[in-house]
Amino acid sequence: MARIITLTTDFGHKGPFVGVMKGAILKHAPDAKIIDLTHEIHVHWPAEAGFWLERSYRYFPEGSIHVAVVDPGVGTERDIVAVEYDGHVFLAPDNGLLPPAFENASALKAWRLSGEWLDAQNWPLPSNTFHGRDIFAPLAAQLSAGVIQPRDIGPSVSELIPSLLEKPYDISGELHGAVVTLDHFGNLITNIEQTALTEFSSPEVCVAGHRFELRSAYGNVHPGEFLALINSFGVVEIARAEGSAADGLGLGRGAPVVVKNKNG
Amino acid sequence: MARIITLTTDFGHKGPFVGVMKGAILKHAPDAKIIDLTHEIHVHWPAEAGFWLERSYRYFPEGSIHVAVVDPGVGTERDIVAVEYDGHVFLAPDNGLLPPAFENASALKAWRLSGEWLDAQNWPLPSNTFHGRDIFAPLAAQLSAGVIQPRDIGPSVSELIPSLLEKPYDISGELHGAVVTLDHFGNLITNIEQTALTEFSSPEVCVAGHRFELRSAYGNVHPGEFLALINSFGVVEIARAEGSAADGLGLGRGAPVVVKNKNG
Amino acid sequence: MARIITLTTDFGHKGPFVGVMKGAILKHAPDAKIIDLTHEIHVHWPAEAGFWLERSYRYFPEGSIHVAVVDPGVGTERDIVAVEYDGHVFLAPDNGLLPPAFENASALKAWRLSGEWLDAQNWPLPSNTFHGRDIFAPLAAQLSAGVIQPRDIGPSVSELIPSLLEKPYDISGELHGAVVTLDHFGNLITNIEQTALTEFSSPEVCVAGHRFELRSAYGNVHPGEFLALINSFGVVEIARAEGSAADGLGLGRGAPVVVKNKNG
Repeated sequence: MARIITLTTDFGHKGPFVGVMKGAILKHAPDAKIIDLTHEIHVHWPAEAGFWLERSYRYFPEGSIHVAVVDPGVGTERDIVAVEYDGHVFLAPDNGLLPPAFENASALKAWRLSGEWLDAQNWPLPSNTFHGRDIFAPLAAQLSAGVIQPRDIGPSVSELIPSLLEKPYDISGELHGAVVTLDHFGNLITNIEQTALTEFSSPEVCVAGHRFELRSAYGNVHPGEFLALINSFGVVEIARAEGSAADGLGLGRGAPVVVKNKNG
Repeated sequence: MARIITLTTDFGHKGPFVGVMKGAILKHAPDAKIIDLTHEIHVHWPAEAGFWLERSYRYFPEGSIHVAVVDPGVGTERDIVAVEYDGHVFLAPDNGLLPPAFENASALKAWRLSGEWLDAQNWPLPSNTFHGRDIFAPLAAQLSAGVIQPRDIGPSVSELIPSLLEKPYDISGELHGAVVTLDHFGNLITNIEQTALTEFSSPEVCVAGHRFELRSAYGNVHPGEFLALINSFGVVEIARAEGSAADGLGLGRGAPVVVKNKNG
Repeated sequence: MARIITLTTDFGHKGPFVGVMKGAILKHAPDAKIIDLTHEIHVHWPAEAGFWLERSYRYFPEGSIHVAVVDPGVGTERDIVAVEYDGHVFLAPDNGLLPPAFENASALKAWRLSGEWLDAQNWPLPSNTFHGRDIFAPLAAQLSAGVIQPRDIGPSVSELIPSLLEKPYDISGELHGAVVTLDHFGNLITNIEQTALTEFSSPEVCVAGHRFELRSAYGNVHPGEFLALINSFGVVEIARAEGSAADGLGLGRGAPVVVKNKNG
């Protein structure tokens, strides 16, 4: 049985771009089960894809193939890599998309697609602008069908282009992070990990002149009130009960978020 | 063979939320066939999900599992229920989402998920903010695979939280309804059932100062003209041929719609 | 094994419209593999569906069934046709949706759905406003399952309603085309085929007062710069590196695009 293939792109839903990627997969692996992770990654910003991949892959069966195409450099000299991590396989351009966790793994298992290997396949000549369809799709299909292994596609690589994700930093015992992305509700999702909060005895989340203690559920405050919580992916989130924190606070991606102790 | 699982949420398409629900389903039921009903329910408004579920489920094979997650109270004291209705199974928070038809069934077949049953499963501890992934997904998967039945998950319940859907009412022989939702074309879809019109000899639909006789197809008027019809889900709809009635009339969800006799 | 069914519509993602089409397909062909090509065709403009279908079908396995429903005349006298072309099957209203290539085929293989055939099926009476669910879905399912063939549904037709797509035209050695559609990135996709450029020794693409030589990849210019290229579907496209050409140039569908020689 073919392994699951997930797709993460910034293609949106206009035009046939995602659809033909799936067609190209099914030509090589008719049994492939293809799941859309999201196609609304912020356009041209690979790091968001890595942020979500790192937090999402473990909800899929082991052995899944995760394809991420946020690729403003398509058709230029950037590499395509396959990475094995925690029992899953990831295919992406090597452009800062992949999460920091991969690079920091004790032993990076990554391979760079070689032109020689690609030329040896019987695939149509790839376009310069749509490697999702022309390279990633047949590659994922063959990995999914077990015809090839990641190590087959080219030489192993010892490091990846570092992730483009901002990392929180400490200033005088305060943790300075940022909003990484928004969801459909307007919740502001930050790069501050739950684990980073253990150093605070009574953490408060400071954003746009507000200070919030951590709550455990949206419904813990009245509709219309703002709150902060650790979300279901393990990071600090600023939300508004039955409303949009992004609209209500006038904030978006990149907005600074600081964690302090209550009386700090 | 696993039964079909449909998904209805207000998650939109940004971020991996729908995708990881599917991953969590496939972990428990690798053969599950998952169909998106819609993920663009008006955010935080469960009633629209029930409106569409009641009118959509019969287009799926009998035995399908319909999962609806519009759940502003996630992580608080609200219940999760499984309902058997007309040969289909529905999973939803008990928050007014489920349609009035279920509550009015001659014999309600509904069960409330019990904490004891949930604790006895070998699932990871659920988050407080994403029961779609952590509870609904594995529950739907096991129902789909036939591993459990709705009655297994907890005590039966004798009534549901009443639907939040507005109901039309009669004033002096006029039927006063409302726009429940809009589609992508800007058609205004109301809560007035076709069956309620049988009491009118020559019904006209009154909205925003216009009066419309009922037509049978969008193409029965010239492009740009407004019209009313009984739509393909059996309710009164106000439309504009090759245009948007919502934009053209400046109306949206909640707008009043009245049915009268022609010379009334 | 059931053949792949692709769906191309202008239904968007609000409401259950695409979902119930899939349900109706699965009722008749439980094994059908359904792939969304796109549901964001410009509303009420069938020609865009044909533009994309002609350029997309070949990325799917031979024998796939491609269903396109952009159908402002639903419920009126327009026909529904099945066309065999290049080993694939296409189902659509006969309203100018299907691409010019089909009509120009040496031998058009097309059949018109007859009322007699439809009446002889055991399907529920179709609505006047949603043939996607009531006619196209069961029809595609039965074609997919091999229960019927295109020629079974009614009389053959010798011509289709001509495509509504604008065609480029020549004025004094200059090729005058137009923007057909935009993608999610704001790239401006034209009706000018790569093959039409062979008549130019040093082609430049002229749009909104700019003149662009052809580049081969988005990354060949600096972020923020505009460019023209032959895109992955073989037509001229105007783009902006890591930006939106549509926003940057203030252009949309229908905007004129002219190809000239460099010193012309």
